[in-house]
Amino acid sequence: MNELEFVEDMLRQTSVYAKEKYADRVNIEVSMKDEASNLLTEVDLEVQKRIVERIDKDFPGDLVVAEEAGLDRNPSDEGCRCWVMDPIDGTQNFVRGLFPIFGISLAFVVGGKAQAGGVIMPVSGDLFLGERGAGSFRNGKRMQVSAIDDLERAKLEFDFVRLSKREAALRIADQALRQSAAVRSKGCAVAALCSVAAGDADAYIHIGLSPWDYAAAQLLVEEAGGTLTRMDGSPLELFDDKKGLLATNGILHEQYLSLLAVD
Amino acid sequence: MNELEFVEDMLRQTSVYAKEKYADRVNIEVSMKDEASNLLTEVDLEVQKRIVERIDKDFPGDLVVAEEAGLDRNPSDEGCRCWVMDPIDGTQNFVRGLFPIFGISLAFVVGGKAQAGGVIMPVSGDLFLGERGAGSFRNGKRMQVSAIDDLERAKLEFDFVRLSKREAALRIADQALRQSAAVRSKGCAVAALCSVAAGDADAYIHIGLSPWDYAAAQLLVEEAGGTLTRMDGSPLELFDDKKGLLATNGILHEQYLSLLAVD
Repeated sequence: MNELEFVEDMLRQTSVYAKEKYADRVNIEVSMKDEASNLLTEVDLEVQKRIVERIDKDFPGDLVVAEEAGLDRNPSDEGCRCWVMDPIDGTQNFVRGLFPIFGISLAFVVGGKAQAGGVIMPVSGDLFLGERGAGSFRNGKRMQVSAIDDLERAKLEFDFVRLSKREAALRIADQALRQSAAVRSKGCAVAALCSVAAGDADAYIHIGLSPWDYAAAQLLVEEAGGTLTRMDGSPLELFDDKKGLLATNGILHEQYLSLLAVD
Repeated sequence: MNELEFVEDMLRQTSVYAKEKYADRVNIEVSMKDEASNLLTEVDLEVQKRIVERIDKDFPGDLVVAEEAGLDRNPSDEGCRCWVMDPIDGTQNFVRGLFPIFGISLAFVVGGKAQAGGVIMPVSGDLFLGERGAGSFRNGKRMQVSAIDDLERAKLEFDFVRLSKREAALRIADQALRQSAAVRSKGCAVAALCSVAAGDADAYIHIGLSPWDYAAAQLLVEEAGGTLTRMDGSPLELFDDKKGLLATNGILHEQYLSLLAVD
Protein backbone atom coordinates (compact mmCIF):
# COMPACT_ATOMS: atom_id res chain seq x y z
CA MET A 1 0.00 0.00 0.00
CA ASN A 2 1.54 3.34 -1.02
CA GLU A 3 1.04 6.56 0.89
CA LEU A 4 -1.96 7.76 -1.14
CA GLU A 5 -3.70 4.43 -0.71
CA PHE A 6 -2.90 4.58 2.98
CA VAL A 7 -4.49 8.04 3.22
CA GLU A 8 -7.65 6.80 1.52
CA ASP A 9 -7.82 3.70 3.66
CA MET A 10 -7.40 5.60 6.93
CA LEU A 11 -9.93 8.27 5.98
CA ARG A 12 -12.53 5.69 5.01
CA GLN A 13 -11.99 3.68 8.20
CA THR A 14 -12.03 6.53 10.70
CA SER A 15 -14.92 8.17 8.88
CA VAL A 16 -17.21 5.28 9.81
CA TYR A 17 -16.37 5.76 13.46
CA ALA A 18 -16.80 9.55 13.34
CA LYS A 19 -20.16 9.24 11.59
CA GLU A 20 -21.39 6.80 14.24
CA LYS A 21 -20.32 9.19 16.99
CA TYR A 22 -22.04 12.09 15.28
CA ALA A 23 -25.27 10.09 15.05
CA ASP A 24 -24.95 9.25 18.75
CA ARG A 25 -24.57 12.93 19.52
CA VAL A 26 -27.95 13.55 17.88
CA ASN A 27 -29.69 10.83 19.86
CA ILE A 28 -28.29 11.90 23.19
CA GLU A 29 -28.23 15.56 22.29
CA VAL A 30 -29.82 17.12 25.37
CA SER A 31 -28.22 15.06 28.10
CA MET A 32 -24.79 15.39 26.59
CA LYS A 33 -24.85 19.10 25.94
CA ASP A 34 -22.81 20.02 28.99
CA GLU A 35 -20.29 17.36 28.18
CA ALA A 36 -20.16 18.25 24.51
CA SER A 37 -16.50 19.16 24.62
CA ASN A 38 -15.64 15.87 26.31
CA LEU A 39 -17.45 13.93 23.66
CA LEU A 40 -15.60 15.83 21.03
CA THR A 41 -12.21 15.27 22.63
CA GLU A 42 -12.98 11.59 22.83
CA VAL A 43 -13.74 11.37 19.10
CA ASP A 44 -10.84 13.59 18.23
CA LEU A 45 -8.38 11.55 20.22
CA GLU A 46 -9.74 8.21 19.11
CA VAL A 47 -9.49 9.09 15.39
CA GLN A 48 -5.95 10.35 15.94
CA LYS A 49 -5.00 7.27 17.94
CA ARG A 50 -6.22 4.93 15.24
CA ILE A 51 -4.31 6.74 12.51
CA VAL A 52 -1.12 7.01 14.55
CA GLU A 53 -1.19 3.31 15.40
CA ARG A 54 -1.47 2.39 11.74
CA ILE A 55 1.31 4.79 10.76
CA ASP A 56 3.59 3.25 13.38
CA LYS A 57 2.77 -0.18 12.00
CA ASP A 58 2.86 0.49 8.24
CA PHE A 59 5.47 3.27 8.15
CA PRO A 60 7.59 2.87 11.28
CA GLY A 61 9.88 5.80 11.98
CA ASP A 62 7.73 8.38 10.18
CA LEU A 63 7.02 11.56 12.13
CA VAL A 64 3.48 12.46 13.17
CA VAL A 65 2.30 16.08 13.34
CA ALA A 66 -1.06 16.66 14.97
CA GLU A 67 -2.76 18.99 17.39
CA GLU A 68 -2.25 16.66 20.34
CA ALA A 69 1.22 15.40 19.49
CA GLY A 70 4.70 16.67 20.26
CA LEU A 71 7.58 16.73 17.77
CA ASP A 72 10.96 15.06 18.15
CA ARG A 73 12.37 16.31 14.82
CA ASN A 74 11.93 19.25 12.48
CA PRO A 75 9.41 18.11 9.86
CA SER A 76 10.86 20.57 7.34
CA ASP A 77 14.22 18.81 7.25
CA GLU A 78 15.11 17.51 3.83
CA GLY A 79 13.79 14.03 3.29
CA CYS A 80 11.91 13.99 6.58
CA ARG A 81 8.80 11.85 6.12
CA CYS A 82 5.87 12.91 8.21
CA TRP A 83 2.11 12.63 8.47
CA VAL A 84 0.01 15.69 9.28
CA MET A 85 -3.52 15.15 10.47
CA ASP A 86 -6.57 16.87 11.84
CA PRO A 87 -8.79 14.17 13.34
CA ILE A 88 -11.89 16.41 13.39
CA ASP A 89 -11.83 19.78 11.63
CA GLY A 90 -15.04 21.72 12.29
CA THR A 91 -15.35 20.78 15.93
CA GLN A 92 -18.13 23.26 16.68
CA ASN A 93 -20.20 21.83 13.84
CA PHE A 94 -19.70 18.33 15.20
CA VAL A 95 -21.08 19.26 18.60
CA ARG A 96 -23.65 21.84 17.46
CA GLY A 97 -24.95 22.24 13.98
CA LEU A 98 -27.82 20.81 11.99
CA PHE A 99 -25.50 20.38 9.06
CA PRO A 100 -22.61 18.00 9.69
CA ILE A 101 -19.88 20.09 8.11
CA PHE A 102 -16.81 18.55 9.70
CA GLY A 103 -14.01 16.55 8.15
CA ILE A 104 -11.01 14.34 8.78
CA SER A 105 -7.77 15.44 7.16
CA LEU A 106 -4.56 13.47 6.57
CA ALA A 107 -1.49 14.39 4.54
CA PHE A 108 1.78 12.66 3.79
CA VAL A 109 4.58 15.21 3.80
CA VAL A 110 8.23 14.92 2.75
CA GLY A 111 10.67 17.69 3.59
CA GLY A 112 7.84 20.02 4.50
CA LYS A 113 5.85 19.53 1.27
CA ALA A 114 2.69 17.43 1.01
CA GLN A 115 3.00 14.60 -1.50
CA ALA A 116 -0.36 12.94 -0.94
CA GLY A 117 -3.36 13.93 1.09
CA GLY A 118 -7.04 13.66 1.55
CA VAL A 119 -10.12 14.92 3.33
CA ILE A 120 -13.30 13.02 4.09
CA MET A 121 -16.64 14.42 5.23
CA PRO A 122 -17.88 11.50 7.34
CA VAL A 123 -21.62 12.11 7.16
CA SER A 124 -21.96 12.68 3.42
CA GLY A 125 -19.07 10.36 2.66
CA ASP A 126 -17.55 12.90 0.26
CA LEU A 127 -13.91 11.88 -0.25
CA PHE A 128 -11.27 14.27 -1.60
CA LEU A 129 -7.87 12.87 -2.57
CA GLY A 130 -4.82 14.40 -4.16
CA GLU A 131 -1.29 13.49 -5.13
CA ARG A 132 1.50 15.92 -6.00
CA GLY A 133 1.64 16.29 -9.77
CA ALA A 134 -1.22 13.91 -10.42
CA GLY A 135 -4.29 16.03 -9.67
CA SER A 136 -6.95 16.04 -7.00
CA PHE A 137 -10.25 14.26 -7.06
CA ARG A 138 -13.67 14.34 -5.44
CA ASN A 139 -15.15 10.88 -5.23
CA GLY A 140 -12.91 9.84 -8.09
CA LYS A 141 -13.78 12.77 -10.34
CA ARG A 142 -11.02 15.24 -11.15
CA MET A 143 -11.44 18.66 -9.54
CA GLN A 144 -10.83 21.99 -11.21
CA VAL A 145 -11.02 25.42 -9.60
CA SER A 146 -13.57 27.90 -10.95
CA ALA A 147 -13.01 30.29 -13.86
CA ILE A 148 -14.69 33.24 -12.13
CA ASP A 149 -12.61 36.35 -12.80
CA ASP A 150 -14.51 39.23 -11.19
CA LEU A 151 -15.59 39.98 -7.65
CA GLU A 152 -19.12 40.77 -8.81
CA ARG A 153 -19.62 37.03 -9.36
CA ALA A 154 -17.22 35.69 -6.75
CA LYS A 155 -18.15 33.56 -3.77
CA LEU A 156 -15.93 34.05 -0.74
CA GLU A 157 -15.59 31.58 2.11
CA PHE A 158 -14.66 33.41 5.30
CA ASP A 159 -13.89 32.24 8.81
CA PHE A 160 -15.02 34.42 11.71
CA VAL A 161 -12.53 32.70 14.06
CA ARG A 162 -12.85 32.89 17.82
CA LEU A 163 -13.79 36.04 19.71
CA SER A 164 -10.26 36.91 20.76
CA LYS A 165 -9.19 37.29 17.11
CA ARG A 166 -12.50 38.44 15.66
CA GLU A 167 -11.61 42.13 15.43
CA ALA A 168 -8.47 41.33 13.47
CA ALA A 169 -10.32 38.99 11.11
CA LEU A 170 -13.04 41.55 10.35
CA ARG A 171 -10.51 44.33 9.87
CA ILE A 172 -8.24 42.37 7.53
CA ALA A 173 -11.08 40.97 5.44
CA ASP A 174 -13.29 44.06 5.53
CA GLN A 175 -13.09 44.99 1.85
CA ALA A 176 -13.20 41.38 0.69
CA LEU A 177 -16.43 40.93 2.68
CA ARG A 178 -17.91 44.08 1.17
CA GLN A 179 -16.95 43.39 -2.44
CA SER A 180 -17.54 39.67 -2.98
CA ALA A 181 -20.85 38.79 -4.63
CA ALA A 182 -21.58 36.09 -2.06
CA VAL A 183 -20.06 35.24 1.30
CA ARG A 184 -20.39 32.00 3.20
CA SER A 185 -19.01 30.90 6.54
CA LYS A 186 -18.91 27.21 7.38
CA GLY A 187 -16.66 27.07 10.43
CA CYS A 188 -14.66 24.23 8.85
CA ALA A 189 -11.41 24.97 7.06
CA VAL A 190 -11.17 21.74 5.11
CA ALA A 191 -14.75 22.13 3.82
CA ALA A 192 -14.05 25.68 2.68
CA LEU A 193 -10.77 24.72 1.01
CA CYS A 194 -12.37 21.73 -0.70
CA SER A 195 -15.08 24.11 -1.97
CA VAL A 196 -12.36 26.20 -3.62
CA ALA A 197 -10.69 23.09 -5.05
CA ALA A 198 -13.99 21.83 -6.45
CA GLY A 199 -14.78 25.16 -8.10
CA ASP A 200 -17.79 25.81 -5.87
CA ALA A 201 -16.20 28.76 -4.08
CA ASP A 202 -13.69 31.20 -5.53
CA ALA A 203 -11.73 32.31 -2.48
CA TYR A 204 -11.15 31.54 1.19
CA ILE A 205 -9.72 33.72 3.94
CA HIS A 206 -8.68 32.48 7.39
CA ILE A 207 -6.41 34.58 9.58
CA GLY A 208 -5.07 31.78 11.75
CA LEU A 209 -4.67 28.16 10.68
CA SER A 210 -2.30 25.47 11.90
CA PRO A 211 -0.49 23.00 9.62
CA TRP A 212 -2.97 20.19 10.30
CA ASP A 213 -5.82 22.42 9.13
CA TYR A 214 -4.45 22.83 5.61
CA ALA A 215 -1.70 20.23 4.99
CA ALA A 216 -3.98 18.03 2.89
CA ALA A 217 -6.36 20.69 1.60
CA GLN A 218 -3.55 22.90 0.31
CA LEU A 219 -2.46 20.03 -1.92
CA LEU A 220 -6.04 19.50 -3.07
CA VAL A 221 -6.44 23.16 -4.05
CA GLU A 222 -3.05 23.39 -5.76
CA GLU A 223 -3.62 20.21 -7.73
CA ALA A 224 -7.00 21.58 -8.83
CA GLY A 225 -5.26 24.63 -10.27
CA GLY A 226 -5.75 27.05 -7.37
CA THR A 227 -3.34 29.32 -5.54
CA LEU A 228 -2.56 29.63 -1.81
CA THR A 229 -0.35 32.16 -0.09
CA ARG A 230 0.00 33.90 3.22
CA MET A 231 -2.14 37.03 3.48
CA ASP A 232 0.83 39.21 2.46
CA GLY A 233 1.35 37.17 -0.69
CA SER A 234 4.37 35.24 0.59
CA PRO A 235 4.54 31.46 0.02
CA LEU A 236 2.37 29.25 2.19
CA GLU A 237 4.70 26.86 3.99
CA LEU A 238 3.55 24.15 6.34
CA PHE A 239 5.97 24.61 9.22
CA ASP A 240 6.98 28.26 9.26
CA ASP A 241 4.92 29.08 12.35
CA LYS A 242 3.05 31.79 10.46
CA LYS A 243 -0.70 32.15 10.47
CA GLY A 244 -3.33 33.16 7.99
CA LEU A 245 -3.87 32.20 4.41
CA LEU A 246 -5.62 33.20 1.24
CA ALA A 247 -6.74 30.46 -1.14
CA THR A 248 -8.29 31.32 -4.49
CA ASN A 249 -8.94 29.95 -7.94
CA GLY A 250 -5.70 31.68 -8.95
CA ILE A 251 -7.37 34.15 -11.30
CA LEU A 252 -8.65 36.25 -8.41
CA HIS A 253 -5.58 35.90 -6.21
CA GLU A 254 -3.92 39.26 -6.84
CA GLN A 255 -7.25 41.04 -6.57
CA TYR A 256 -8.05 39.49 -3.19
CA LEU A 257 -4.50 40.09 -1.95
CA SER A 258 -4.88 43.78 -2.76
CA LEU A 259 -8.09 43.91 -0.69
CA LEU A 260 -6.61 42.39 2.46
CA ALA A 261 -5.69 44.94 5.12
CA VAL A 262 -2.54 43.20 6.35
CA ASP A 263 -0.35 45.11 8.77
CA MET B 1 -56.02 15.10 4.46
CA ASN B 2 -55.75 18.18 6.70
CA GLU B 3 -53.48 21.12 5.98
CA LEU B 4 -50.50 19.84 7.99
CA GLU B 5 -50.69 16.47 6.29
CA PHE B 6 -50.92 18.27 2.96
CA VAL B 7 -47.77 20.26 3.77
CA GLU B 8 -45.87 17.09 4.63
CA ASP B 9 -47.11 15.29 1.54
CA MET B 10 -46.17 18.11 -0.82
CA LEU B 11 -42.73 18.61 0.75
CA ARG B 12 -41.93 14.91 0.50
CA GLN B 13 -43.09 14.70 -3.11
CA THR B 14 -41.35 17.78 -4.46
CA SER B 15 -38.23 16.98 -2.47
CA VAL B 16 -37.65 13.84 -4.56
CA TYR B 17 -37.76 15.90 -7.73
CA ALA B 18 -35.48 18.64 -6.36
CA LYS B 19 -32.95 16.08 -5.16
CA GLU B 20 -32.85 14.44 -8.59
CA LYS B 21 -32.29 17.79 -10.23
CA TYR B 22 -29.51 18.63 -7.80
CA ALA B 23 -27.79 15.32 -8.58
CA ASP B 24 -28.11 16.08 -12.29
CA ARG B 25 -26.46 19.41 -11.71
CA VAL B 26 -23.45 17.64 -10.23
CA ASN B 27 -23.13 15.23 -13.13
CA ILE B 28 -23.40 17.91 -15.79
CA GLU B 29 -21.65 20.52 -13.70
CA VAL B 30 -19.20 21.96 -16.22
CA SER B 31 -21.37 22.03 -19.29
CA MET B 32 -24.29 23.56 -17.46
CA LYS B 33 -22.40 26.27 -15.61
CA ASP B 34 -23.39 29.05 -17.98
CA GLU B 35 -26.98 27.95 -17.90
CA ALA B 36 -27.03 27.49 -14.17
CA SER B 37 -29.66 30.14 -13.62
CA ASN B 38 -31.93 28.56 -16.20
CA LEU B 39 -31.66 25.21 -14.53
CA LEU B 40 -32.53 26.79 -11.28
CA THR B 41 -35.53 28.65 -12.63
CA GLU B 42 -36.77 25.43 -14.17
CA VAL B 43 -36.58 23.60 -10.82
CA ASP B 44 -38.03 26.53 -8.97
CA LEU B 45 -40.98 26.85 -11.29
CA GLU B 46 -41.63 23.14 -11.52
CA VAL B 47 -41.76 22.70 -7.73
CA GLN B 48 -44.09 25.68 -7.46
CA LYS B 49 -46.27 24.42 -10.31
CA ARG B 50 -46.69 21.02 -8.69
CA ILE B 51 -47.67 22.49 -5.34
CA VAL B 52 -50.06 25.05 -6.84
CA GLU B 53 -51.79 22.39 -8.93
CA ARG B 54 -52.39 20.26 -5.85
CA ILE B 55 -53.64 23.23 -3.82
CA ASP B 56 -56.12 24.07 -6.58
CA LYS B 57 -57.30 20.49 -6.57
CA ASP B 58 -57.40 19.77 -2.83
CA PHE B 59 -58.23 23.26 -1.52
CA PRO B 60 -59.97 25.09 -4.37
CA GLY B 61 -60.35 28.81 -3.79
CA ASP B 62 -57.38 29.13 -1.45
CA LEU B 63 -54.95 31.94 -2.24
CA VAL B 64 -51.36 31.21 -3.24
CA VAL B 65 -48.49 33.52 -2.27
CA ALA B 66 -45.17 32.82 -3.94
CA GLU B 67 -42.30 34.63 -5.56
CA GLU B 68 -43.61 34.06 -9.08
CA ALA B 69 -47.30 34.54 -8.37
CA GLY B 70 -49.60 37.55 -8.32
CA LEU B 71 -52.25 38.24 -5.69
CA ASP B 72 -55.95 38.78 -6.27
CA ARG B 73 -56.82 39.34 -2.60
CA ASN B 74 -55.17 40.63 0.55
CA PRO B 75 -53.85 37.56 2.35
CA SER B 76 -54.09 39.36 5.69
CA ASP B 77 -57.87 39.65 5.48
CA GLU B 78 -59.63 37.92 8.33
CA GLY B 79 -60.31 34.32 7.51
CA CYS B 80 -58.43 34.46 4.24
CA ARG B 81 -56.92 31.04 3.62
CA CYS B 82 -53.66 31.09 1.78
CA TRP B 83 -50.56 29.05 1.07
CA VAL B 84 -47.14 30.66 1.16
CA MET B 85 -44.26 28.85 -0.48
CA ASP B 86 -40.66 29.12 -1.47
CA PRO B 87 -39.98 26.36 -4.00
CA ILE B 88 -36.19 26.57 -3.58
CA ASP B 89 -34.69 28.66 -0.78
CA GLY B 90 -30.90 28.78 -1.03
CA THR B 91 -30.77 29.11 -4.79
CA GLN B 92 -27.06 29.93 -4.91
CA ASN B 93 -26.28 26.77 -2.94
CA PHE B 94 -28.36 24.72 -5.35
CA VAL B 95 -26.37 25.92 -8.35
CA ARG B 96 -22.98 26.26 -6.65
CA GLY B 97 -21.98 24.73 -3.38
CA LEU B 98 -20.47 21.44 -2.31
CA PHE B 99 -22.96 21.28 0.50
CA PRO B 100 -26.58 21.09 -0.61
CA ILE B 101 -28.00 23.60 1.84
CA PHE B 102 -31.26 24.49 0.12
CA GLY B 103 -34.82 23.81 1.17
CA ILE B 104 -38.44 23.81 0.10
CA SER B 105 -40.81 25.78 2.31
CA LEU B 106 -44.61 25.66 2.49
CA ALA B 107 -46.98 27.25 5.00
CA PHE B 108 -50.72 27.29 5.41
CA VAL B 109 -51.82 30.73 6.56
CA VAL B 110 -55.19 32.01 7.80
CA GLY B 111 -55.77 35.73 8.17
CA GLY B 112 -52.06 36.43 7.85
CA LYS B 113 -50.94 33.93 10.50
CA ALA B 114 -49.34 30.57 9.73
CA GLN B 115 -51.30 27.64 11.15
CA ALA B 116 -49.21 24.80 9.74
CA GLY B 117 -45.95 24.76 7.89
CA GLY B 118 -42.88 22.83 7.00
CA VAL B 119 -39.44 22.87 5.47
CA ILE B 120 -37.61 20.01 3.81
CA MET B 121 -33.94 19.79 2.89
CA PRO B 122 -34.16 17.57 -0.19
CA VAL B 123 -30.67 16.07 -0.18
CA SER B 124 -30.45 15.08 3.49
CA GLY B 125 -34.19 14.46 3.69
CA ASP B 126 -34.42 16.43 6.93
CA LEU B 127 -38.09 17.31 7.42
CA PHE B 128 -39.27 20.08 9.76
CA LEU B 129 -42.99 20.38 10.51
CA GLY B 130 -44.97 22.61 12.81
CA GLU B 131 -48.55 23.35 13.75
CA ARG B 132 -49.78 26.38 15.66
CA GLY B 133 -50.08 25.45 19.31
CA ALA B 134 -48.91 21.89 18.83
CA GLY B 135 -45.15 22.28 18.57
CA SER B 136 -42.60 21.83 15.83
CA PHE B 137 -40.69 18.71 14.96
CA ARG B 138 -37.56 17.61 13.14
CA ASN B 139 -38.05 14.18 11.62
CA GLY B 140 -40.77 13.51 14.15
CA LYS B 141 -38.74 14.62 17.17
CA ARG B 142 -39.91 17.70 19.02
CA MET B 143 -37.68 20.73 18.66
CA GLN B 144 -36.65 23.11 21.41
CA VAL B 145 -34.59 26.27 21.07
CA SER B 146 -31.28 26.47 22.93
CA ALA B 147 -30.84 27.64 26.51
CA ILE B 148 -27.72 29.72 25.75
CA ASP B 149 -27.97 33.00 27.64
CA ASP B 150 -24.73 34.84 26.93
CA LEU B 151 -23.07 36.11 23.77
CA GLU B 152 -19.77 34.52 24.79
CA ARG B 153 -21.30 31.13 23.97
CA ALA B 154 -23.79 32.19 21.32
CA LYS B 155 -23.78 31.05 17.71
CA LEU B 156 -25.14 33.61 15.27
CA GLU B 157 -26.40 32.81 11.79
CA PHE B 158 -25.95 35.82 9.53
CA ASP B 159 -26.87 36.48 5.92
CA PHE B 160 -24.51 38.62 3.84
CA VAL B 161 -27.29 39.32 1.29
CA ARG B 162 -26.56 40.62 -2.19
CA LEU B 163 -23.95 43.26 -2.97
CA SER B 164 -26.44 46.11 -3.31
CA LYS B 165 -27.52 45.69 0.33
CA ARG B 166 -24.23 44.42 1.76
CA GLU B 167 -23.14 47.72 3.33
CA ALA B 168 -26.43 48.03 5.19
CA ALA B 169 -26.26 44.42 6.41
CA LEU B 170 -22.71 44.80 7.74
CA ARG B 171 -23.51 48.13 9.39
CA ILE B 172 -26.68 46.92 11.11
CA ALA B 173 -25.15 43.65 12.31
CA ASP B 174 -21.68 45.01 13.08
CA GLN B 175 -21.74 44.59 16.85
CA ALA B 176 -23.59 41.28 16.69
CA LEU B 177 -20.87 39.95 14.36
CA ARG B 178 -18.16 41.19 16.72
CA GLN B 179 -19.67 39.89 19.94
CA SER B 180 -21.12 36.46 19.10
CA ALA B 181 -18.89 33.53 20.03
CA ALA B 182 -19.39 31.89 16.64
CA VAL B 183 -20.79 33.14 13.36
CA ARG B 184 -21.99 31.07 10.43
CA SER B 185 -23.40 32.05 7.09
CA LYS B 186 -25.28 29.48 5.06
CA GLY B 187 -26.99 31.55 2.39
CA CYS B 188 -30.27 29.77 3.06
CA ALA B 189 -32.85 31.41 5.31
CA VAL B 190 -34.90 28.31 6.04
CA ALA B 191 -31.77 26.36 7.04
CA ALA B 192 -30.67 29.13 9.39
CA LEU B 193 -34.13 29.47 10.94
CA CYS B 194 -34.45 25.71 11.37
CA SER B 195 -31.05 25.77 13.10
CA VAL B 196 -32.47 28.25 15.61
CA ALA B 197 -35.62 26.15 16.04
CA ALA B 198 -33.58 22.99 16.61
CA GLY B 199 -31.37 24.68 19.21
CA ASP B 200 -28.23 24.41 17.08
CA ALA B 201 -27.93 28.16 16.55
CA ASP B 202 -28.97 30.86 18.98
CA ALA B 203 -29.79 33.78 16.70
CA TYR B 204 -30.32 34.72 13.07
CA ILE B 205 -30.16 38.11 11.37
CA HIS B 206 -31.33 38.84 7.84
CA ILE B 207 -32.00 42.40 6.72
CA GLY B 208 -34.37 41.61 3.86
CA LEU B 209 -36.64 38.60 3.68
CA SER B 210 -39.92 38.11 1.84
CA PRO B 211 -42.95 36.30 3.30
CA TRP B 212 -42.21 33.04 1.46
CA ASP B 213 -38.73 32.95 3.05
CA TYR B 214 -40.05 32.76 6.61
CA ALA B 215 -43.78 31.91 6.58
CA ALA B 216 -43.16 28.29 7.54
CA ALA B 217 -39.88 28.74 9.44
CA GLN B 218 -41.30 31.48 11.67
CA LEU B 219 -43.91 29.01 12.88
CA LEU B 220 -41.21 26.36 13.42
CA VAL B 221 -39.10 28.72 15.55
CA GLU B 222 -42.07 30.04 17.55
CA GLU B 223 -43.39 26.56 18.26
CA ALA B 224 -39.91 25.55 19.43
CA GLY B 225 -39.97 28.37 21.98
CA GLY B 226 -38.06 31.01 20.06
CA THR B 227 -38.78 34.66 19.34
CA LEU B 228 -38.92 36.56 16.05
CA THR B 229 -39.35 40.28 15.53
CA ARG B 230 -38.45 42.96 13.04
CA MET B 231 -35.01 44.42 13.66
CA ASP B 232 -36.52 47.30 15.65
CA GLY B 233 -38.32 44.89 17.95
CA SER B 234 -41.76 45.33 16.39
CA PRO B 235 -43.87 42.25 15.65
CA LEU B 236 -42.94 40.15 12.65
CA GLU B 237 -45.98 40.06 10.38
CA LEU B 238 -46.13 38.14 7.13
CA PHE B 239 -47.69 40.72 4.84
CA ASP B 240 -46.69 44.14 6.15
CA ASP B 241 -44.21 44.79 3.34
CA LYS B 242 -41.44 45.34 5.86
CA LYS B 243 -38.02 43.72 5.61
CA GLY B 244 -35.51 42.32 8.02
CA LEU B 245 -35.88 40.06 10.98
CA LEU B 246 -34.20 38.87 14.12
CA ALA B 247 -34.85 35.32 15.28
CA THR B 248 -33.43 34.06 18.56
CA ASN B 249 -33.90 31.47 21.25
CA GLY B 250 -35.88 34.15 23.13
CA ILE B 251 -33.45 34.44 25.99
CA LEU B 252 -31.00 36.43 23.88
CA HIS B 253 -33.59 38.47 22.01
CA GLU B 254 -33.35 41.76 23.90
CA GLN B 255 -29.58 41.55 23.93
CA TYR B 256 -29.34 41.09 20.17
CA LEU B 257 -31.95 43.79 19.57
CA SER B 258 -29.83 46.22 21.54
CA LEU B 259 -26.82 45.41 19.35
CA LEU B 260 -28.54 46.04 16.02
CA ALA B 261 -27.78 49.44 14.50
CA VAL B 262 -31.22 50.07 13.06
CA ASP B 263 -31.91 53.53 11.65
